[in-house]
Order: sequence, then structure tokens, then C-alpha cells
Amino acid sequence: MTRRTAVGLVVLALTLALPLPAAAQTGDLRAQIEKVAKAWEKAYNSGDAAALAALYTKDALLMAPGVEAASGTKAIQALFVKDLAGGLKNTLTTGDVVGAGDHAVETGTWVATSADGKHVDHGGYMTLYKKEGGGWKLYRDIWNSAMPQK
Amino acid sequence: MTRRTAVGLVVLALTLALPLPAAAQTGDLRAQIEKVAKAWEKAYNSGDAAALAALYTKDALLMAPGVEAASGTKAIQALFVKDLAGGLKNTLTTGDVVGAGDHAVETGTWVATSADGKHVDHGGYMTLYKKEGGGWKLYRDIWNSAMPQK
Repeated sequence: MTRRTAVGLVVLALTLALPLPAAAQTGDLRAQIEKVAKAWEKAYNSGDAAALAALYTKDALLMAPGVEAASGTKAIQALFVKDLAGGLKNTLTTGDVVGAGDHAVETGTWVATSADGKHVDHGGYMTLYKKEGGGWKLYRDIWNSAMPQK
Repeated sequence: MTRRTAVGLVVLALTLALPLPAAAQTGDLRAQIEKVAKAWEKAYNSGDAAALAALYTKDALLMAPGVEAASGTKAIQALFVKDLAGGLKNTLTTGDVVGAGDHAVETGTWVATSADGKHVDHGGYMTLYKKEGGGWKLYRDIWNSAMPQK
């Protein structure tokens, strides 16, 4: 082995072990997370509590306002059954997405409208995603309303 | 350069580029984040809005319930001035801490008590921290109340 080959191998090893350039990685991650957020929105607006719960990991924790935190698929689905009874539609807008490895965090805003499209409520959310089986699932989720509390 | 030296360099290069063992990194990170959470708690319970705001990055976003999101030091400090006017004390309990590189996420629970120690409110929070100048600062922060909304 020549010195040139040895140096080449070291450079190759470093290149393989280093992450992708930040910009490329971030863009890809954001697209992946937005896709899951859109799936959440679709499930919510279809009134499908089971589909919503299936977007969360089995050990997920959901902290919704006005109720105690729901842990695990069954409790999360039950929480959404009650929540969906309100008959509102939800629109999510992704703000920031940051992440590394098997975790990603999204912050965003939501707007709830009535069946006839009138603004009912709005606020912010933060979601911690975990990579499972090659896809992203919601692992920790919290939202609140920015409207004055009655 | 011998073949042995070349292989050794490749192994060294890979070792340098790989992160610390997960367990060691997680334990250390959790202690660092809990320290900041305790500083938040201390500042809150001292009624010090400026000290609270100083724990956030200059471009931080705070999503507190019942008010529009506050962005930046000045708006965050103003939000805390109003919040602290309630005269409550706040106790935080860190749940999970996950992170990598320059970001970390904490989920936890909080309990608010009156000056005479009576339970007033409680709920959950999620905080995204960012490393700045070697220390952790709050970058995105949200909480809500788990108590039934009036």
C-alpha cells in the first residue's frame, strides 16, 4: 500500500462517517416531516381517530390542553375520539423543523374552523418525532390555544 | 507506511468521526438540560422576567397558552411580566430529554401553586434547546394546562 492509498482511505473513511451537508439534510427532513403533518391533518379532517393514533409511536405521549396527558395508542385514540366530536377541521402550518439521527422536532401553528369554514380557534404546537422502521412517527406532541382563556 | 499503520489510521478516523456512546451522551445531556430547567424555575419563582427572558435565545419563540406567540427577548420578557403578575410559583419536572449536536428537546410537567402552597394549575411542556456559546438556551417553548378549560 502506498502512502497515497493510505491517505485516500482515511479521507474516504472520514467522508463516509460524516453527515450529509446541513442544507441537503435539512431540506429532506423538512419534506419528510411535512408529509407526516399532512397525514395528521388528513386523518383529523376525516374524523378518523384510529388513523390519527396510528401516526404516533406505541409509547407516545400526547399533551393536549384541558385533559391529562394520554400515553400509548389506546389512550391517544380515545382522546381523539372525544376531540373529534367537536366536528372542527384543522389546518396545520409547519414552522421550523430541526433534527438529527432518529429524532426530529417540528414547531408550527394550527387553525381550527367550523364545518362552514369559520375561524373557531388557533394556536401553536410542538412535536417530537422518532424514526421507526424507516418512517417518522409522533413520539411527543403538545399544542395549546393562543386565544384568551375564558 | 505499513499496511497496519494505514488500517490503524482508518480506524482512528472512523472513531473520531463517530459520536460518543449513546448512554454517556444522554446522561450528560439530561444533567445539562435539567440545570437550565432549574434556572428557569428559580427565575420564575423569584418573579424575575428579565432573568427568564435571558434564558432564551435572541430569536426564540415562546408559545404560552391564551396569548399570541412571543418572538424575541423583548416580547418574551413582556409576556413573563404579565404572567408573573399572577404571583404563582412554578415547579417543573423533567420527563424525557433527547438530543444530538446543537439541539436538545425536553418534555416535562409543571405545577403552579399559590403563595400559600395550594395547587392552582398543572400541565405539560415541551422545550427545544439550542447550544449557544457552549451553553444551552431555550429556542422554542410551549406549555399548556391539563385542567378542564372553563
